[in-house]
Amino acid sequence: MRFFSDNAAPVHPRVWAAMQAADGPDRAYDGDAISQRLDAAFSDTFGADCTALWIATGTAGNCLALSAMVPPHGGVVCHREAHIEMDEGGAPGFFLHGAKLLLAEGEGAKITPETIRAVIDPIRPEVHQVQPHAISITQASEYGRVYLPGEVAAIGALAKERGLGLHMDGARFAGAVAHLGCHPAEVTVQASVDALTFGCVKNGGMSAEAIVFFTPGMADMVRFRRKRAGHLQSKGRYLAAQVLALLEGDLWLANARAANAAAQEIAAACADRLIHPVEANEVFVILSPAEAAALRAQGFDFYDWTAPADAPGAARLVTSWSSPPREVQALARAIAGL
Amino acid sequence: MRFFSDNAAPVHPRVWAAMQAADGPDRAYDGDAISQRLDAAFSDTFGADCTALWIATGTAGNCLALSAMVPPHGGVVCHREAHIEMDEGGAPGFFLHGAKLLLAEGEGAKITPETIRAVIDPIRPEVHQVQPHAISITQASEYGRVYLPGEVAAIGALAKERGLGLHMDGARFAGAVAHLGCHPAEVTVQASVDALTFGCVKNGGMSAEAIVFFTPGMADMVRFRRKRAGHLQSKGRYLAAQVLALLEGDLWLANARAANAAAQEIAAACADRLIHPVEANEVFVILSPAEAAALRAQGFDFYDWTAPADAPGAARLVTSWSSPPREVQALARAIAGL
Amino acid sequence: MRFFSDNAAPVHPRVWAAMQAADGPDRAYDGDAISQRLDAAFSDTFGADCTALWIATGTAGNCLALSAMVPPHGGVVCHREAHIEMDEGGAPGFFLHGAKLLLAEGEGAKITPETIRAVIDPIRPEVHQVQPHAISITQASEYGRVYLPGEVAAIGALAKERGLGLHMDGARFAGAVAHLGCHPAEVTVQASVDALTFGCVKNGGMSAEAIVFFTPGMADMVRFRRKRAGHLQSKGRYLAAQVLALLEGDLWLANARAANAAAQEIAAACADRLIHPVEANEVFVILSPAEAAALRAQGFDFYDWTAPADAPGAARLVTSWSSPPREVQALARAIAGL
Amino acid sequence: MRFFSDNAAPVHPRVWAAMQAADGPDRAYDGDAISQRLDAAFSDTFGADCTALWIATGTAGNCLALSAMVPPHGGVVCHREAHIEMDEGGAPGFFLHGAKLLLAEGEGAKITPETIRAVIDPIRPEVHQVQPHAISITQASEYGRVYLPGEVAAIGALAKERGLGLHMDGARFAGAVAHLGCHPAEVTVQASVDALTFGCVKNGGMSAEAIVFFTPGMADMVRFRRKRAGHLQSKGRYLAAQVLALLEGDLWLANARAANAAAQEIAAACADRLIHPVEANEVFVILSPAEAAALRAQGFDFYDWTAPADAPGAARLVTSWSSPPREVQALARAIAGL
Repeated sequence: MRFFSDNAAPVHPRVWAAMQAADGPDRAYDGDAISQRLDAAFSDTFGADCTALWIATGTAGNCLALSAMVPPHGGVVCHREAHIEMDEGGAPGFFLHGAKLLLAEGEGAKITPETIRAVIDPIRPEVHQVQPHAISITQASEYGRVYLPGEVAAIGALAKERGLGLHMDGARFAGAVAHLGCHPAEVTVQASVDALTFGCVKNGGMSAEAIVFFTPGMADMVRFRRKRAGHLQSKGRYLAAQVLALLEGDLWLANARAANAAAQEIAAACADRLIHPVEANEVFVILSPAEAAALRAQGFDFYDWTAPADAPGAARLVTSWSSPPREVQALARAIAGL
Repeated sequence: MRFFSDNAAPVHPRVWAAMQAADGPDRAYDGDAISQRLDAAFSDTFGADCTALWIATGTAGNCLALSAMVPPHGGVVCHREAHIEMDEGGAPGFFLHGAKLLLAEGEGAKITPETIRAVIDPIRPEVHQVQPHAISITQASEYGRVYLPGEVAAIGALAKERGLGLHMDGARFAGAVAHLGCHPAEVTVQASVDALTFGCVKNGGMSAEAIVFFTPGMADMVRFRRKRAGHLQSKGRYLAAQVLALLEGDLWLANARAANAAAQEIAAACADRLIHPVEANEVFVILSPAEAAALRAQGFDFYDWTAPADAPGAARLVTSWSSPPREVQALARAIAGL
Repeated sequence: MRFFSDNAAPVHPRVWAAMQAADGPDRAYDGDAISQRLDAAFSDTFGADCTALWIATGTAGNCLALSAMVPPHGGVVCHREAHIEMDEGGAPGFFLHGAKLLLAEGEGAKITPETIRAVIDPIRPEVHQVQPHAISITQASEYGRVYLPGEVAAIGALAKERGLGLHMDGARFAGAVAHLGCHPAEVTVQASVDALTFGCVKNGGMSAEAIVFFTPGMADMVRFRRKRAGHLQSKGRYLAAQVLALLEGDLWLANARAANAAAQEIAAACADRLIHPVEANEVFVILSPAEAAALRAQGFDFYDWTAPADAPGAARLVTSWSSPPREVQALARAIAGL
Repeated sequence: MRFFSDNAAPVHPRVWAAMQAADGPDRAYDGDAISQRLDAAFSDTFGADCTALWIATGTAGNCLALSAMVPPHGGVVCHREAHIEMDEGGAPGFFLHGAKLLLAEGEGAKITPETIRAVIDPIRPEVHQVQPHAISITQASEYGRVYLPGEVAAIGALAKERGLGLHMDGARFAGAVAHLGCHPAEVTVQASVDALTFGCVKNGGMSAEAIVFFTPGMADMVRFRRKRAGHLQSKGRYLAAQVLALLEGDLWLANARAANAAAQEIAAACADRLIHPVEANEVFVILSPAEAAALRAQGFDFYDWTAPADAPGAARLVTSWSSPPREVQALARAIAGL
């Protein structure tokens, strides 16, 4: 019973079907008819003109989006525990040619105008120090926390005031929107987000995410960078088909709601163990080594996490669109019975 | 009727089947059971210990392989019309951090020890000039020409003599081996090739190639570089499955033989128009604009090519594993009838 | 008797004097009073507002200037034998993060609108090919040839038409202007040059060149890049002093005239041996190995050069502002007497 | 009266004399007779075979030294307030092609085996996280603190145990050795330091530092990187002459002793204000805005510093080899009289 990672989940049947429907000869790269539909589909979803590029991974998506905002001698403000800082193997350094991540604090891996200012205000505006050029936030955050529309808008306002780009790592964007119950535009284009990495793989996709540009012009440059990074797949239609299948009929939201509900079910069973409020599909719990072993003995697979001070241990439990209800209930019961 | 690019071909049914068989929960990235089988499968195919990594594109595969051989201040000898020089959007400059391509001549886009020496011998061995660190050859070449085992071995011997790495861009490696009828090791590991980009996408795959390292140690570094380039897909099992399906029962060779045979059928119908001998699945022909228009009027789609001096025009006709025999025959007849 | 390189010449007494006059405590980096005078001095020399930065070497100057025009995924058109292509150890690849040099032809290492178009017109305007973003020309060229004002203006017009930046490598700019007898603005700001690397070291300086920006805004970004490249010296006043000393009273032109005159004296003695017309301070001559040995036996030091086809050998003879007239006359006599 | 920065100090007369003695024609770059003497001079100073390269700035020296140890996908452990992290405008990101600085804690800007382990031990040894490849320490530290021989040796032992390179930023190395009274080898080659940036500019030089490699082989690669970074000056003899002048008769130590003594004189006058023990030539003091204004009104120039918590303000006072005793005494009196 796998609660290790939403990356481990299978591909949604409607995604499979869309890929198979794409299986005929067509133009190579992104010249095919399916890829050509991405802009319209995302513009429709977000209720605003935007340009979208498929991309194989969130790491590449994040870094390519940032490459439209940050020169090699610049910097990006992000949370100290942001995925781009902690888990992308130095990809921002590669894609941004040595630009620097400027690390901000914030509860639940969410940054705020205050914590951003605490990083950028002390930077002397001269050549000895790397100047900020963009801000990157993660929605939902690395701890499964969700930025409210007003929180994103406040960061967006600061970004515009300081002339900084604003990027959103949306590996779990669907979960955040499902949690908020808002229109996706409220936490993006209406909040001054320039570019969003729209996650699909953790949410029923196989091998395609999308970079959505709300600011005109950015996509044109990124098309060159995508090719240059070896990310322009020659049979792009199979990637486009995955993304479109998730947008179609808001499957992306339905899948996210299922994953969120499973997480809530587990959270409800162990409210006293929670390290962070559960807002999307990740549950961080206090768990002693003995308790972790007991759960594993019952067949549950999950990731050990760094324990907070004074806690005997911790674990991360991740649900997905495909978590079997029976397994979710079993885990909830097991953890409640510890 | 598409003779535009083998990238336009669909995915082979056995590849589809393997992907679907992979559709269950498993470890993320390349920790899954299917990815773990790649080394053994390639070692078996090549009859030699090797390490293999899946990768989404040939561009990324070529550049990551070279990154194991070439420091940022070094150079790579390749043909003036090599794919890495002409068609990868500057990807070598990105992945190799500004290393330089050193351009050699050679008939049919094949380089030789002589043309390589003509490039590297005049380089003064001092810091004002970029020193060569590797050689990259394309098998089959950008003009569909095939290196014989002895030709690769001669280049390999020069590489070893000069302390250079040897990389083979094998986007159409299957076609070359099918043409030669030799064991794949004869043009790779037995000829001092350090790393091979083993093409799958043009040959029945969807979104996976493989980088095969015959020289121990290189893969370890490239694993870090693959992640850093955003190319470590989280559901890697679907890529591994594609590659394994093509190796299984030598489907890769069967597909290549079909594509080669189709090219031969077309070539036989227009021997007097051929710009290059046809050895793999590409047919380069003299074709006047009027003739090209006539073929297109009959429903044939293909790529205009730069005409040789004194020729009225040229075209590239590419077959694939899936080219319908009826369409191939139709094209052969049409071109013969011009 | 050294005719090997103008880099081997000593430092001009007025440059020494200016450096010593700078020897007191002052602000570090380029905050000192002397560095602050550079903009005005160059604006005065060129009769146009410009911004100037001192820089230790021509290689760094060329590459930093280009970094204001060319993104990492872009390209720079230059002559096949340009210094940035042949002799800078891959520095453009480093400073431009892997951008590509696009090599053009041209007699005497001078490119023309025609040869530039021959390079850029075939580039397909799509992501598989590196797009041009700038043109770089060398004044005087690597073969001591000088661009006329109209020739630069024609290239400048093409650059503007295509939206490309125009950079001039002026390692021997003084020699070119001295030869032309024109105002320096005629071959730069009036001809659409965006940035000039203004050479000083070969012309009486010690360790300072200048990058002169005629296009507003470029210098601001390059200040950051200069620091980032470790080129912001902490005692910048000693570099600024060198540059100002050469501008003062047009010492730069006087020095160049002396070097040019010495080259003419040698050229006049061997008109039948000349490979290129002598316009600045470099004399390229046909010289057989025996003749070269004979000259060396008489105490003349010089650089062997690649011989043109059908020539028995060649040499490069370089004069400088400090070439002793007696030695110049001796070389002229010796070569005439071969 | 300048206590702002040792970068503001003039050039030592013996350095001037050596530069002028170098003023004759010689080979370009580092082929001249003076540059050729560097290896022997440093080997003599350190009592061990080493290879030394002149370099214009400490920033370039630090980054080029590290480039011999750290691949683009690697990391460097340094103090959170190290110069390479705080004040080099992102140069490590440029020279190391995006490699990452891994920030450690430590009192007085000195790191320890414990604080280094606190950074590297939690790094999972897999591709999602950047792996450490080197450690960089600053001697004397950014707060003027000096590593004892045993402290360097302990870090060196950890570096060797973990397979990491060890670099020492020695912008104020002379001050540290003068303070310790030890042989320079005790804090470098005998303590497993692989490469030292040997500072000259703050200590009587004009425009030359040296990179000293104790580990064979590293310098060979760095020679290429130095050229590629535009740091191979064509008249290198004037840089080599500066460095040799400082080594000659241990002028470097005499200058450092003078600077250190001046700092001690000031420190003795304000022991109760000291933020850090004074070991080299920097004095960090608690100073309220009113007190700072009072000193400035008396003609003292210095740098405001970030005040520690609960302090009303702070300043950095820097002495140099050339600080006039009268000015030092005046400052000591003035600060005592506040």
